[in-house]
This record gives sequence, structure tokens and C-alpha cells, in this order.
Amino acid sequence: MNTLRRVGMVHSPLTRLTEAPRQGDEGAPDAWIAIDPEFSAAARDLQPGDDVLVFTWLHRADRTVLAVHPRDDASRPLTGVFATRSSHRPNPIGLHRVRILAIEDEGIHVSGLEAVDGTPVVDIKPVLGPDSER
Amino acid sequence: MNTLRRVGMVHSPLTRLTEAPRQGDEGAPDAWIAIDPEFSAAARDLQPGDDVLVFTWLHRADRTVLAVHPRDDASRPLTGVFATRSSHRPNPIGLHRVRILAIEDEGIHVSGLEAVDGTPVVDIKPVLGPDSER
Repeated sequence: MNTLRRVGMVHSPLTRLTEAPRQGDEGAPDAWIAIDPEFSAAARDLQPGDDVLVFTWLHRADRTVLAVHPRDDASRPLTGVFATRSSHRPNPIGLHRVRILAIEDEGIHVSGLEAVDGTPVVDIKPVLGPDSER
Repeated sequence: MNTLRRVGMVHSPLTRLTEAPRQGDEGAPDAWIAIDPEFSAAARDLQPGDDVLVFTWLHRADRTVLAVHPRDDASRPLTGVFATRSSHRPNPIGLHRVRILAIEDEGIHVSGLEAVDGTPVVDIKPVLGPDSER
């Protein structure tokens, strides 16, 4: 159907998948999102303190996988990937809730992002809350 | 970069964008997600009562838009789309939190989905919570 365009890239001290925590609240390091220049206008209103959802493309995932043992635990039954957060799935879109710490020359500095260095970013959306008007 | 594959489709009484509420908690109707047969194994462990995130491809969106007046209110300043939930953005991925009401022949019956009939579905993930182990 449609082709995703990269709008930015993750810069992170995480370089190996085996080091990556499975979720951002399990010890992921702070990271930077460098927005590609042609999309800078889309990012201009992001501000420190904002909680945002970062959508990535998990480019190393296996798109042919339809069922997995959750958390790679072979003692757990095979489970259809739509009932899991496995990165291996037909469309390996990563979803990461992070807080913006600062806007810096290197990019948007964010807290706790569980994606490896070089992961493409495809979208950023504000977290909706009771005070959100955007 | 990479091409999304449709894994299912939304069936909804909503047929016009102008009728669609802007967010699912603003009165969206219940809907069905029909999973394409080749991806049925990925959906087999979804169960009534599950809270899931449905990822759609907002195929009618304008991908060239980088800034919008939030909620189409011209009195509000132009805002970069990454700080808004506008469907118009470089990669128009829709994110919808819904509850599975039932698994039926017509598809997965879900509560409050703010996408129009015929919207392609590209991923489903469980909502992560303190009790989640998947």
C-alpha cells in the first residue's frame, strides 16, 4: 500500500539489539532524535517537558513472523504477534512514549527510548491528556 | 524506505471524514476490524476485554502538510504537525486505543474507533499496563 518516509533518526548509546530493553521503562537510556531538515517545520513546536509518542520503523525486524513465544521465553506458548509487543510483525512500527528533555543542536533530547542507534523515526505525536488541546 | 502492508480493514458506520470525531473519546462509534486471511494467525490470541492500540493508515490525509491550525481553528497559530494529532502529516499513521468487545464472524468488534469505513489497518498491539506480561 503506502511507503513510509523517514522523518528523522534515533541517536543512542544503544547499538545492539541484545542490549536494548524490551520497553522504555525497563532502563532504556536517554537518546536524541535528529529530525531530517526537510521535516524541521513539523517539529518546530515541540518543547521541553512535552510527553510525546515516537513512532519508529524497526528496520531489523522479521516481517514474516506471525506468532512468537512472548519475551523469547520458549516455555510460554506461541502467541499471535498482535497480542504481543514483539518487534517481529508484519509492519514493525515501534511505539515509544518519551519526555522531551531539551531541544539541542544534535536533535531532540528525550528520556528513555528503547531503540538502537540508527533506527528511523517516522512520526511524533503529542500524548493526549485531560489538559491537551492540541 | 519501507512499504506498509495492509493487515485488515475498518468497517464502521462512519463514512465521511466530516462526521468522524477527532478522537475516539469524543463519541466515535463501535466498529469492526476485519483481519485479512493471510494475517489471521497474528490476531488469533486477541480476546474480548483486551485493550489494544490499533494502527491505521489514514489514506485520505495530505502527506505534504507540515503545519496546521489545531482542530481547524483558524484563530489558533499554525503549529508543526508533530505537536498536533492532525491526520495530515508526512506519515499519516492513525493510533486508536480501543477495547475488544467480541470476536465475531465480521471481524474484531471494538469500542469507539474514530476511523472511517474502509480505513486500512496496519498493526495491533496490546496496551501495556502493570498487569501486562505479553
